[in-house]
Amino acid sequence: MRQAGRYLPEYRAIKDRFGFWEMVRTPEIAAEVTLQPLRRFDLDAAILFSDIMTPLTSAGIQIEFNPGPCVTTPIRSHDAIRRLRLPHRSAIAPFVVNTIKMVREESVRPLIGFAGAPLTLAAYLVEGGGSADYGVLKRWLHDNTPAAHDLLRFLSDLTTRYLHLQIEAGVQAVQIFDSWAGIHSVRTYDEFGLPYLKQILAALDGTGVPRIYLAVGAAHLYRQIRTLPIEVISVDWRTPLDECRTLFPGKTLQGNLDPALLLASSKVVTEETRRTLRQGLGGPHIFNLGHGVLATTPPDNVARIVDIVHAYTRTEDDVL
Amino acid sequence: MRQAGRYLPEYRAIKDRFGFWEMVRTPEIAAEVTLQPLRRFDLDAAILFSDIMTPLTSAGIQIEFNPGPCVTTPIRSHDAIRRLRLPHRSAIAPFVVNTIKMVREESVRPLIGFAGAPLTLAAYLVEGGGSADYGVLKRWLHDNTPAAHDLLRFLSDLTTRYLHLQIEAGVQAVQIFDSWAGIHSVRTYDEFGLPYLKQILAALDGTGVPRIYLAVGAAHLYRQIRTLPIEVISVDWRTPLDECRTLFPGKTLQGNLDPALLLASSKVVTEETRRTLRQGLGGPHIFNLGHGVLATTPPDNVARIVDIVHAYTRTEDDVL
Repeated sequence: MRQAGRYLPEYRAIKDRFGFWEMVRTPEIAAEVTLQPLRRFDLDAAILFSDIMTPLTSAGIQIEFNPGPCVTTPIRSHDAIRRLRLPHRSAIAPFVVNTIKMVREESVRPLIGFAGAPLTLAAYLVEGGGSADYGVLKRWLHDNTPAAHDLLRFLSDLTTRYLHLQIEAGVQAVQIFDSWAGIHSVRTYDEFGLPYLKQILAALDGTGVPRIYLAVGAAHLYRQIRTLPIEVISVDWRTPLDECRTLFPGKTLQGNLDPALLLASSKVVTEETRRTLRQGLGGPHIFNLGHGVLATTPPDNVARIVDIVHAYTRTEDDVL
Repeated sequence: MRQAGRYLPEYRAIKDRFGFWEMVRTPEIAAEVTLQPLRRFDLDAAILFSDIMTPLTSAGIQIEFNPGPCVTTPIRSHDAIRRLRLPHRSAIAPFVVNTIKMVREESVRPLIGFAGAPLTLAAYLVEGGGSADYGVLKRWLHDNTPAAHDLLRFLSDLTTRYLHLQIEAGVQAVQIFDSWAGIHSVRTYDEFGLPYLKQILAALDGTGVPRIYLAVGAAHLYRQIRTLPIEVISVDWRTPLDECRTLFPGKTLQGNLDPALLLASSKVVTEETRRTLRQGLGGPHIFNLGHGVLATTPPDNVARIVDIVHAYTRTEDDVL
């Protein structure tokens, strides 16, 4: 999950001086922010500091942060979609390439790259920003099905190029964030989500880079998600890991402590971290939060869970 | 689900003249608003116009709408919880009793009463309103477990009295709305949600009134929800009804058209309504939306689905 952020005073110090896009687009700043959590905590991997909307700007789409993404001109018409041009790989986000190289030079820890899932990107593009019910998106998908597929195909092609670019630049794993998958019915996800994820993930076959997929609030989609060509399934806090183990045979599980519990007392943080570790026994498990660190998280609680995870010894209960 | 609302011009005409609490607390207005959808559409039942926060005001809790509920003084301390006094049944919401009586006199259609689930009510009381991540609520539940159980016990007792009051006044079914159940992990729901729901629902045993339960975005909790003593499980649009049929043996299913699809063309509305009806075959099914009608819904699309449902004939595929 996102590791950098407002809960870190050193992040706020940078955020006070620069706009969000300026931070993302300036490799020195983006690399520094990527590394901030690693300087403070004994983490086992870094995740690139960027945003899922980053590659879209190279296709001429204007996006601001306020603080969530706002698309200046929502993309809904056939014309707007026809005008979208797939940028050459080198034009997508050259600053990301430089950020990745700088992080790799500065740190020996594995670096995770990422992208947004096409259907989640489309949610922002069509709505123009976040929404309580995503009614505009859902109506649009159903009333403009051919245009919707054109947009999703474009987003898949762009994402595939963007992830290849990150892998070439040096990321050692990639994660696809499908933050809004959970708002959709099984049928909508089947038609507008799954095929494009499969296309992107299959295009990464043979790169040797582990593929991680995260869908939030998506327990109803797990039967479909298990068909994705991924090495790692990242699960939010809703379903316990031992249950996820049965749902995703052969996959490495990533997760799944509720980030909200990092706001609680050290006793609760300790208990819940240990519970997550216990529930992750029975197969490969990458300890992580179920979603990004909340802005009000005390950094000491992050330090505490890193210590607990590193001190944890797999017991004989572990059926690995 | 909620049937009245801003999508109806006749509702907006009333809303322009009165505050929300004034509408809820004036039986003539609340009864009129309850009946508005029945005057316009050939619906098979009415649902009381009120709010899940209604009974809380009788316990001295100040709530405003802006437009979601805002609790003036969030309830988090042991003292605040100790000060909560369970009102006598007749003091909880006398205006609701009068509204129910007026609706029953004016309409022969069955009337559904409702209440909020304790854990969903607690979400608003502890956070002070809606929230993106409910971090304050989750921290509070874990850091103040005994106080949390005191609050939830109070809310269960209040809800039990409130539902008995509605049944005595004449409602012919009751629905418990657990709008925020889905944000919780299986474990949190197990400790803070399920026992209180069971207490309320068991207390309605023998009233002869069907009990309906709705949890939103809660597919990960369905294994627990199936243990509730209810006659009807109301499901949102995420999981298709034929799958829900297997998950909830012996229950009547209610749902589950995505309210966002009512924003789409009449072709889409027709197709998706028929699909929902087909997927509901195989057992008792109360056609409904998966959640409340959205404010931007064209009333004609509501009329259309009512017509389609009434014209639908169960086929030989129906294994009832």
